[in-house]
Amino acid sequence: MKQNIYDNPIFFNQYKALREKTYNYNGLLEQPTMKSLLPPLTNLQILDIGCGMGEFAQYCLEHHAKHVTALDVSSNMLAIAKQKHAHPHIDYQLQAIEDYEAPSNSFDCITSSLSLHYVQDFDKVISQIAQMLRPNGVFIFSVEHPIATARHTMEDNWIYDESHNRLHYAVDHYHEEGLRQQTWLVDGVVKYHRTIATMMNTLITHGLSIDKIVEPIPSKEAIQQLPSIEKELRRPSFLFIKVKK
Amino acid sequence: MKQNIYDNPIFFNQYKALREKTYNYNGLLEQPTMKSLLPPLTNLQILDIGCGMGEFAQYCLEHHAKHVTALDVSSNMLAIAKQKHAHPHIDYQLQAIEDYEAPSNSFDCITSSLSLHYVQDFDKVISQIAQMLRPNGVFIFSVEHPIATARHTMEDNWIYDESHNRLHYAVDHYHEEGLRQQTWLVDGVVKYHRTIATMMNTLITHGLSIDKIVEPIPSKEAIQQLPSIEKELRRPSFLFIKVKK
Repeated sequence: MKQNIYDNPIFFNQYKALREKTYNYNGLLEQPTMKSLLPPLTNLQILDIGCGMGEFAQYCLEHHAKHVTALDVSSNMLAIAKQKHAHPHIDYQLQAIEDYEAPSNSFDCITSSLSLHYVQDFDKVISQIAQMLRPNGVFIFSVEHPIATARHTMEDNWIYDESHNRLHYAVDHYHEEGLRQQTWLVDGVVKYHRTIATMMNTLITHGLSIDKIVEPIPSKEAIQQLPSIEKELRRPSFLFIKVKK
Repeated sequence: MKQNIYDNPIFFNQYKALREKTYNYNGLLEQPTMKSLLPPLTNLQILDIGCGMGEFAQYCLEHHAKHVTALDVSSNMLAIAKQKHAHPHIDYQLQAIEDYEAPSNSFDCITSSLSLHYVQDFDKVISQIAQMLRPNGVFIFSVEHPIATARHTMEDNWIYDESHNRLHYAVDHYHEEGLRQQTWLVDGVVKYHRTIATMMNTLITHGLSIDKIVEPIPSKEAIQQLPSIEKELRRPSFLFIKVKK
């Protein structure tokens, strides 16, 4: 069963409100990093896994991609995507990556922003991706950083003093891979923790070579716009991996 | 100035006592992992950086390596190495890797156990290593894990409750790379913290391709022999990276 928390109406409305804020982690940290890792997109066939509201698919076409196949498991998300970012060269599909089938060597570039930590069988999904990617193609994805997903807790991983100053970040259970239930906007959001070694070795095993790793830090401007983002310097929340076939 | 804490007599005697214990992290965790990552050693030319007391150099010859160049900055360590593990095909040299020079393509295999976190200029050292390594050669090293070196503190990174049970492990200052002064056996041991991204990208930039990552976990037997090592399951202390040229 693939998690589809984005079709939980309470979650979805809160998530939408978060994304509609002028300054958020997506706009200040995740998307700038993803875009910095992209190859020149001109004429590329792209697969975007977990496309959400379609902004990234639209961005790819604005940068001269030939076609974007954009998957998401949430009909809420896709309804917005189709309304706001419809385009004859974007094919939105209500589909989990685990169930998606495409011929070998279909894509020049596969991307996924903060969705693969929802996937239970990482090995299977990486195997599919490696097969769908063309030789010399690139696959770039971000996930919540294993430092952030490791600890089994329903609470915040930040530890505070009595005045609610952040003392440090708590890590635990690092080698217990698998399910984590977390409270993020609503209770019971399900994610999967995997170690850095597991992610890297899975990619390598499937014939993908590690090209770049990014643990993004906010720019000075981002910190001015959203001062709370400065805590990213204290521990990474996101991990980006770019690989080549 | 290259750190040479191993020639501090108080440190050295304590370190020696630790290593002479029947069960320690070196024997139960670090060395088994290093050995599991080695290629078949028959006829290889090996460079071991931070060879310490020479056990690993000796192991390589027992496994049919052709020759081992074994570097260490500590004359204390090398005195023991030359006494216990002297061999006509081991060349012990009192030398920091930063000052070591060898022709290009000199070695089939370069190893370093828990020494590169003492190196200030990682980029320079990786550049040297990439040059000294033969095409298709392998470089395998372990360092203290960035999760463990991140926090600026003279204290233990474990956070305890009142009964001295470990609550969780503390991470902080992850993106502040550079000097860390720690108390380990004596005060003021100097190490360098680097992020996972920095280490990986430095290797890739110098033409080395990531072959395997290991964040070692103790075996059941190791936990029986040294129960306190079970805490390695809660956060990794060591990071191994194996690359190929």
